[in-house]
Amino acid sequence: MAGSRSVVDRDKQAQSNFDVDYVIHYSIPPKGSAEAEASFAQLITALSAVGFATEVRPGRLHRRHQGPSASSSPPSSLLVFVKLASDRLLTSQIYRARVQDWLYGVRPAAPAANPADDGSNEPVTQAERLRLAYMLITRPRNEGGAGVTPRRGQWRFVQSVFPLHDRAFNREWIGEWSRKYYLDDGDIDRIRDRFGERVAFYFAFLKSYFAFLLFPAAFGFAAWLVLGPFSWLYAVVNCLWSVVFFEHWKMKEVDLAVQWGVRGVSRIQHPRSQFRFEREAVDPVTGEIVKVYSPVKRLATQLLQVPFAAACVVALGGLIAGCFAIEIFITEVYNGPFKQYLTFLPTVLLTIFNPTLTTLLTRLAEKLTELENYETHDAHQASFVRKIFVINFITSYLGVFLTAFVYVPFGKLLVPYLDVFQLTAQRFTADGKPVPTKSWQIDPNRLTKQVIYFTVTAQIVNFATEVIVPYAKRKLFKRVEKVQSDLSEKTAVHTKDSPEEAEFLERVRDEAELDEYDVTIDYREMVIQFGYLSLFSVVWPLTACSFLVNNWVEARSDAMKIAANCQRPIPWRADSIGPWLGALGFLSWLGSLTSAALVFLFHSNSSISGSSGKTGGPDGSPWDIRAWALLLAILFAEHVYLVVQLVVRGLVRQLDSPGLQKERAERFAMRKRLLDRMAERGVSAEPAAGPGVGGGAEEEKITREALEEEARRLSVSGEGRPEQLFWLRQRSADETIQVGRALIAETTSSNQTGSRK
Amino acid sequence: MAGSRSVVDRDKQAQSNFDVDYVIHYSIPPKGSAEAEASFAQLITALSAVGFATEVRPGRLHRRHQGPSASSSPPSSLLVFVKLASDRLLTSQIYRARVQDWLYGVRPAAPAANPADDGSNEPVTQAERLRLAYMLITRPRNEGGAGVTPRRGQWRFVQSVFPLHDRAFNREWIGEWSRKYYLDDGDIDRIRDRFGERVAFYFAFLKSYFAFLLFPAAFGFAAWLVLGPFSWLYAVVNCLWSVVFFEHWKMKEVDLAVQWGVRGVSRIQHPRSQFRFEREAVDPVTGEIVKVYSPVKRLATQLLQVPFAAACVVALGGLIAGCFAIEIFITEVYNGPFKQYLTFLPTVLLTIFNPTLTTLLTRLAEKLTELENYETHDAHQASFVRKIFVINFITSYLGVFLTAFVYVPFGKLLVPYLDVFQLTAQRFTADGKPVPTKSWQIDPNRLTKQVIYFTVTAQIVNFATEVIVPYAKRKLFKRVEKVQSDLSEKTAVHTKDSPEEAEFLERVRDEAELDEYDVTIDYREMVIQFGYLSLFSVVWPLTACSFLVNNWVEARSDAMKIAANCQRPIPWRADSIGPWLGALGFLSWLGSLTSAALVFLFHSNSSISGSSGKTGGPDGSPWDIRAWALLLAILFAEHVYLVVQLVVRGLVRQLDSPGLQKERAERFAMRKRLLDRMAERGVSAEPAAGPGVGGGAEEEKITREALEEEARRLSVSGEGRPEQLFWLRQRSADETIQVGRALIAETTSSNQTGSRK
Repeated sequence: MAGSRSVVDRDKQAQSNFDVDYVIHYSIPPKGSAEAEASFAQLITALSAVGFATEVRPGRLHRRHQGPSASSSPPSSLLVFVKLASDRLLTSQIYRARVQDWLYGVRPAAPAANPADDGSNEPVTQAERLRLAYMLITRPRNEGGAGVTPRRGQWRFVQSVFPLHDRAFNREWIGEWSRKYYLDDGDIDRIRDRFGERVAFYFAFLKSYFAFLLFPAAFGFAAWLVLGPFSWLYAVVNCLWSVVFFEHWKMKEVDLAVQWGVRGVSRIQHPRSQFRFEREAVDPVTGEIVKVYSPVKRLATQLLQVPFAAACVVALGGLIAGCFAIEIFITEVYNGPFKQYLTFLPTVLLTIFNPTLTTLLTRLAEKLTELENYETHDAHQASFVRKIFVINFITSYLGVFLTAFVYVPFGKLLVPYLDVFQLTAQRFTADGKPVPTKSWQIDPNRLTKQVIYFTVTAQIVNFATEVIVPYAKRKLFKRVEKVQSDLSEKTAVHTKDSPEEAEFLERVRDEAELDEYDVTIDYREMVIQFGYLSLFSVVWPLTACSFLVNNWVEARSDAMKIAANCQRPIPWRADSIGPWLGALGFLSWLGSLTSAALVFLFHSNSSISGSSGKTGGPDGSPWDIRAWALLLAILFAEHVYLVVQLVVRGLVRQLDSPGLQKERAERFAMRKRLLDRMAERGVSAEPAAGPGVGGGAEEEKITREALEEEARRLSVSGEGRPEQLFWLRQRSADETIQVGRALIAETTSSNQTGSRK
Repeated sequence: MAGSRSVVDRDKQAQSNFDVDYVIHYSIPPKGSAEAEASFAQLITALSAVGFATEVRPGRLHRRHQGPSASSSPPSSLLVFVKLASDRLLTSQIYRARVQDWLYGVRPAAPAANPADDGSNEPVTQAERLRLAYMLITRPRNEGGAGVTPRRGQWRFVQSVFPLHDRAFNREWIGEWSRKYYLDDGDIDRIRDRFGERVAFYFAFLKSYFAFLLFPAAFGFAAWLVLGPFSWLYAVVNCLWSVVFFEHWKMKEVDLAVQWGVRGVSRIQHPRSQFRFEREAVDPVTGEIVKVYSPVKRLATQLLQVPFAAACVVALGGLIAGCFAIEIFITEVYNGPFKQYLTFLPTVLLTIFNPTLTTLLTRLAEKLTELENYETHDAHQASFVRKIFVINFITSYLGVFLTAFVYVPFGKLLVPYLDVFQLTAQRFTADGKPVPTKSWQIDPNRLTKQVIYFTVTAQIVNFATEVIVPYAKRKLFKRVEKVQSDLSEKTAVHTKDSPEEAEFLERVRDEAELDEYDVTIDYREMVIQFGYLSLFSVVWPLTACSFLVNNWVEARSDAMKIAANCQRPIPWRADSIGPWLGALGFLSWLGSLTSAALVFLFHSNSSISGSSGKTGGPDGSPWDIRAWALLLAILFAEHVYLVVQLVVRGLVRQLDSPGLQKERAERFAMRKRLLDRMAERGVSAEPAAGPGVGGGAEEEKITREALEEEARRLSVSGEGRPEQLFWLRQRSADETIQVGRALIAETTSSNQTGSRK
């Protein structure tokens, strides 16, 4: 009995996080230990001053120094474990945060006066606890936090601050998701409870997007069978779908935010600790001292975005266009020696330079955003996302744009200029003879091939680089490590840790080495994917089918990534998918333009080639088409799109949703409570005692003349102001009624007299 | 002394409204007096039940029945005067309204618990008092009002419910405005205090628009001198201006709403009493009984807007195009007899049919909106405004559109079809000979003439019909009336009224006969005017100058209209100019298209004609231009417009404004108050006593080994869960610091050893 319990205990213990809220990974510098020690002492003091319990353990052992004795092998870092020391602290933090929410209009009602009551009414999720603990660690000291800012200033030895994965939950989560076809709301809610709303919003978006993909996948498959490519019907349906999806998501987003109680949470801005201020000034309104950075300066820096975008276009565009030109030259014009090797040249060039350039530009974007010096995280993030969207837009779509709108229509005009390459090639050949070429034809299938490449092959490659490679790398690395440590000494690690904790500490050391999870990357991937669907799927209607399969895997692999390949994310809140929403809207709109143009340029060709039985298609010269008709088609498509968007928006807005219902219910409850309180105070709308409707019994028979006489008498005797006298003529409602009735009767009788006359 | 006081009194008395809040104009039907009497009694009872003091006086006397004795001449209507009977009632109503505002987020903070305190802190404006009184009169009984709904159901004898003009204020207002060049914020605030935010928003818009017009007026004048018409520079500047104006106004609107404390007031919806519900249902959320009208049915009705718009286009468009064709035929082709008379035919046709059709269509729009059966006033109004915007768009702009985009470019193609008229004319001539015609040339100045007509002549005509005609009509009518009553008996009216009230009652009887003020009409006028500027001013750059003059007068004449030609408006609140904002945005956007097209079509002509010295311009055949270039120009202009709009919006959003400052200040004050209250309760963020940083004195020298030994001992003896043990290793922050320091020192020393090795 005792034995079995201890086995269970041991099992549980292996899973347990020992109530740790956060682990602070503290690196020990090879030199300057005095500073590191002092800083460490400050760290612990600061943490315990705001109410954290702390424990320190050695981090991973040095590998480079494998002495004979394991016990003298020192750690290269420390792991500081912190937890909120008392429930009272947690409760007060929760109350504080909820009051702030209420003040910013995130919660409809103030939290209960007694925080303890409130906590019991509204469950405290892991995400909330962890978020508050993180805020307490990182908030500046004058706002009641410990002010720990990893990797900066005083805290430059703090490598990272991360919560620990809940292994049991993760295992169950991944297991469950890999078994089920559809995710349901419960799945998303569970993610929200663990990883916070920001991550949950990503999965909710993925879920919504996946469900919406079912339609274009089915319709696309049918269109592929029946209509073929470049069908205007498919283009219209696809655009309509993208509008509906976009508008639906905008509503769904609000709905989820309300359901999760985070609507308007983006109003609560987290100040960036990196913000550099020029001067401190007294806010004229609040009298607080605020840090000021000249908006003119920021605007000037923001204008750098224009040359940045130009640089992106030139660098990436030049690379892509250059490789494109080389590729065409080699595959379609060139016919000289080494052709089979030279075919790979553009691919090699792209593979080498594209990631390099992208990384370079991304780093430039980071720098630029840093320079823009935003005060809040959200503004910083939004600006950064804009920049990487530009980069990704070019790398992802420019190739297809070139094929569709330059190569096919203008190929015949442009290819002669590729002689440049021929001349270059001539230089390198010894004899200086012209390089042999073959007569050239535009390859109309290139567009389709390219779209298929981007929508199928690239997605698979992406999945591999995102999930399989890091996993394999880690496994390999671990094996190497293990072999190494086996070589040096079998029990090197374990002698230092007490046996109860050994397993746990090993796990924590592993997690400390993982990357931080960045939801931006996942959003980017999905948005770019949506772009292919919206912009180019008319070329290959099966696009959505491919994405449907891909996204089923994507949801699981992203879950895997969070659970196994990354540190547990800080559970931030969010009330939308943020700046990506704008990118989605932009792509959906652009889709109306490109779809119209593609259908217009290629439709007649493909249908002609279809009827003539050729699979290849046209002869590559669709340029009998008049430019004005193309422009008219685009103009028309765009405005139809905009009108449809307005209509769909109007319709979607009229729909009810659980979130809106919840909001109504909350507002109603609050209103009722408040009005009840008002009623208690006796200031409700009970009529004040005006000149009442007198009872019938004490009614005194009055005549109009008598009353007027009285008023006249009062006025003559000088009593009362005229205003008073005016209101004294008829002393009660009954008198007014009597006078009125008399007047009506008079009118009627005189009418009758008149008509009798 | 006493004499002079009584003169002052009499003077004041002539101005005084006798504290009357509202006058209810109660008509007496010629027949069915019993019903009218009963209804009258109910009216008075209902009013006095909710706390109004009432007085009744006869209305205007019958004119058609001029008997010999004036005293038997009966009134055709009654005037019921009501005022809030007590200050306590007003205070409680104010408190109630302010609490509601707070609940809906209009006020940042709850009103003071004791309403009396609150009333004294925040002045109660006339507008607020009148609005609350009106609400009390019209609110349904189950919501604590008297439930009086003029002209409907039980209250069909109630002609109108209106407040009385404040003559002294009006005189001062008109006098002051006619003397000053610019209106300032104080002027708008005073209107707000008297006539409520809805009217004040109109004048604020007018003020803003007037100030903004200064720039295009100056620039337009310069462009007229230097650049001539159809200048692309003028077009670009004009579009940019309209974007800036639109975005500025959107911000200004919010700013004003905040300053006036009405931001978000549109969320408080006034239910329409005309709303017909299909069934009553229990709201699943609130448990309240709500009235339900099937949204599907409403949607079906809303779809009728499409045929309605089509009908407008066909009817008005047909009329305008027809008259246009006739006009061209007669003035430019026809050369037969009666030409001098026939020239007026299209004008006559337009003058007869245009107002008729417009009135008909407006009535249709009213009916349609009624059918759509909205639950709230705002939704109803917005839907109605959409429809009349369509009507006005067609009547105002279609003529110019036809000239610019049909007559000039396609005239040569289309004019031959005007032979239809020739054949018709031939029928009417006796001899059947073909009607003499002259050879035809497109008149390129027609467009300019037309724009000048719409921007100058039409504005003056409009001013006349709006202000001068009603004024003259009323004066004339009064004179006739006076002559009539002089004929019948000199003192007919006055014997019935007591002398103190006679003058006042006459005034009220006059006001009872005035029209209700409808701010929609004024907005419509301004929006349509803005449309001319945005769409067509490139044809005649002086447009803005004309509008500048016109709007100076317009502001004064609208003030006059309110003060003298209309009943005092019910002081409704509003937080924006409502549905007109969308119309402004639409016109501004459309302006980018038309300006680009106009410049493209006419620019080369006008510049050529300019250089060749002809004033008339081109030969009317600008159709060498390629259509694709035109389309490209439009497409380009539109997208530049959209991008510029985004940029301007971004910039405007970064500006600070008094309203936003006020909002910040209010929010800050509230937050501070609440946090103070929290601090009192002792739940602020003071750190809960965690494992403290022990003082140095009682510090016990510990070694890591000793601690770990203790933990191991505890674990062996079976005490405590592993979680507890984990956190017991280091009992205080000091111990953590010591252990950490030891580990760091160990690492460093081993590093040094290592490097020494």
